[in-house]
Amino acid sequence: MSDGIVFIDGDYMAPEDATMSIFDVGFVWGDCVYDVTSTWNGWFFMLDEHLERFQRSCEGFRLENPYSFEEMRRICAECVERTGLANTYVKMQVSRGVPPPGVRDPRGLKPIVLVYAVPYVWIWGEDKCRNGATLYVSGVERVSSKAIDQRFKNYNRADLVQARLEAYDNGCDDALLASPDGFLSEGPGFNVFVVQDGRVASPDYNVLEGVTRRSVREICEREGIPFELRKIRPEELEEASEVFTSTTAGGVMPITGVNGKTVGNGHAGIVTSRIQSIYWSEREAGWHGVRPADILAH
Amino acid sequence: MSDGIVFIDGDYMAPEDATMSIFDVGFVWGDCVYDVTSTWNGWFFMLDEHLERFQRSCEGFRLENPYSFEEMRRICAECVERTGLANTYVKMQVSRGVPPPGVRDPRGLKPIVLVYAVPYVWIWGEDKCRNGATLYVSGVERVSSKAIDQRFKNYNRADLVQARLEAYDNGCDDALLASPDGFLSEGPGFNVFVVQDGRVASPDYNVLEGVTRRSVREICEREGIPFELRKIRPEELEEASEVFTSTTAGGVMPITGVNGKTVGNGHAGIVTSRIQSIYWSEREAGWHGVRPADILAH
Repeated sequence: MSDGIVFIDGDYMAPEDATMSIFDVGFVWGDCVYDVTSTWNGWFFMLDEHLERFQRSCEGFRLENPYSFEEMRRICAECVERTGLANTYVKMQVSRGVPPPGVRDPRGLKPIVLVYAVPYVWIWGEDKCRNGATLYVSGVERVSSKAIDQRFKNYNRADLVQARLEAYDNGCDDALLASPDGFLSEGPGFNVFVVQDGRVASPDYNVLEGVTRRSVREICEREGIPFELRKIRPEELEEASEVFTSTTAGGVMPITGVNGKTVGNGHAGIVTSRIQSIYWSEREAGWHGVRPADILAH
Repeated sequence: MSDGIVFIDGDYMAPEDATMSIFDVGFVWGDCVYDVTSTWNGWFFMLDEHLERFQRSCEGFRLENPYSFEEMRRICAECVERTGLANTYVKMQVSRGVPPPGVRDPRGLKPIVLVYAVPYVWIWGEDKCRNGATLYVSGVERVSSKAIDQRFKNYNRADLVQARLEAYDNGCDDALLASPDGFLSEGPGFNVFVVQDGRVASPDYNVLEGVTRRSVREICEREGIPFELRKIRPEELEEASEVFTSTTAGGVMPITGVNGKTVGNGHAGIVTSRIQSIYWSEREAGWHGVRPADILAH
C-alpha cells in the first residue's frame, strides 16, 4: 500500500523525501495557510468547498497562490491517483517562502505550494472516532481571532498542542478550548456540537468554519433537526444530552465523556448516531463528490 | 565571507543544505521554541542568559532538549567558529519532531535541535537600527499569553507578520501590537520603551522578556536613569519625548516616528543615544561576554 505522494512546486515525491528549507518563513513566522480534504471510497468530498476556504485563507494571510483553482483541483486529484488509494487524507498548503539572508520583509517572496495525499487519517483512531472519545475543557485559551483570524486555517497551533497535553494529563482523548470571551471555541482540528432537547448547536465565533460542520448542518436541515450557530457556555457540555464533534479526518464523532464525567448514557446518542450514519452512507455513495480520475480526464 | 553554518542534530552544513521534514510538527503545529543570541567583535553577549531563557522556553512548551546547557554552549561556539566571522546572529531551536504517519500525540517524539550562525542581522538595516525607524501601532492584537505564553519564544507569529504588512501599508518601517487588555505589548522581535521626563518605561506583560531589554535596564541603573516595567497606553508613544526599541539583531534602536507623527525632534533623543552608545561600546569591549574559542578550549 502506498505511504502517500507529496507535490512540492511541480515535483511529485515520496513523503520521506519531502523536505523544506529551515529558513522558510512559513515555519519561522507561522506564515503559512493550509486546508485538508479527503477521499472516501474513491470520492472527494466537498472538494470545491475546501479549495474555496483555502483561497480565503490565502487572501486572509495575504499569501498569493501561484496555482489557479482549477490547477489546485488537478494537483489534488493527481496526488490521490498516484497513491492508488480509495480513502485518503489530502492536505494543501502555501507558505510565504524563503527570504534572502537577513531580510524580514514578507513582500515579494516566492510562495511555496505543497499538496499531499496519504492514507486516510482518523484523528483519534477509527474506533474512537466512530464510537466515542472523551474531551477535556482546557485552561489554555484559544488564540483570539483578533490576533490570528481562526477562519484562516493556519499552523499557529501551539495553544492547541498545550491544551492536548493537558487533556492527556487528565486522562482524556483530546481538548476543547474556550475563546477569550469564555465561550467554547473548538478543539485541535475539530468543531464541537451540543445536543439539548433535540436541538443541535455549535459555537459561532473564533472557530474554523468547518466544511464537515457545514455537512452536519445540511444533514440536520434535511432531517428536520433544529441547528444553530451560537455562543455556547462550557457548562453546556455537561448539561447536554449529547455532544459530538466533526472534522475531515474522522467525520462525525461522538463524545462520551467530558472532564471525566459521562455524557448521556456513555454511548453515542440518538441524534449523533443518526447524523453520523447519514454522513458515512452519503460519503460512501459520493455525496458532494467528484472522482479524481474525472478531474484529470478534463 | 561565510554565509553561515547550520548544526542539525550532530551535523554541520551550509545554510542552503539545511532542510527539515515537511511533517515536523514544529512546523505543522508551531510546536517549536527558539532563541537568538549574537556575537559582536568576537564576543558572545549574555550567552548564558539566552541559553537560560531558551531552557525556560523548552520547559514552557514541554519540549525536551536532548543537549545539556554546556553542550548547547559548545554547539553555539562551534557554529560561530566555523563561520570565521566576528559579528554573527546565532539562532537555536528545538522542534517536537516527526510523528509516525497519522499520529497526533506529541508525546514521545524525538525532538530535533538546530543551531546556526550567520552574519549579524540588523532587523531594519544598520542605518535605521542606529539612526531611527518609524513604527505603526497595528489593529492586529498580539496573541495573548493566556493562549500562548509570550515569555516562551516561539514561531507562532502570524499576528506579527500581518501587523508588519499593515505597517508597510501605512508607510512605516515596522509594527507595534497591543495586548488583549489594550496596553502596548511588543513588535515583531523587539521590546519597546518610552522616555518621559527622563524616565524609561517598557511594557510589563504579554511580552518576551528581552535579554537586550535587561541590558538596557542595567545601563539605566548604572547611569542613574529611572527605569520601570509597567502598563503603557498606546497614546503614550505620541506623548513621549523619546521612543526606542531593543533586540538582539539591532541593539538599542531609536524610533523617530509613530503612526506618521514625529517623535521628539525627529532624531534619536538624548536618553536613547546615551543608552545606545553605552550598549555598543560595552559590547565592543566584551561586556557580559565570552569568546567562542574560550568555550571550545574547555
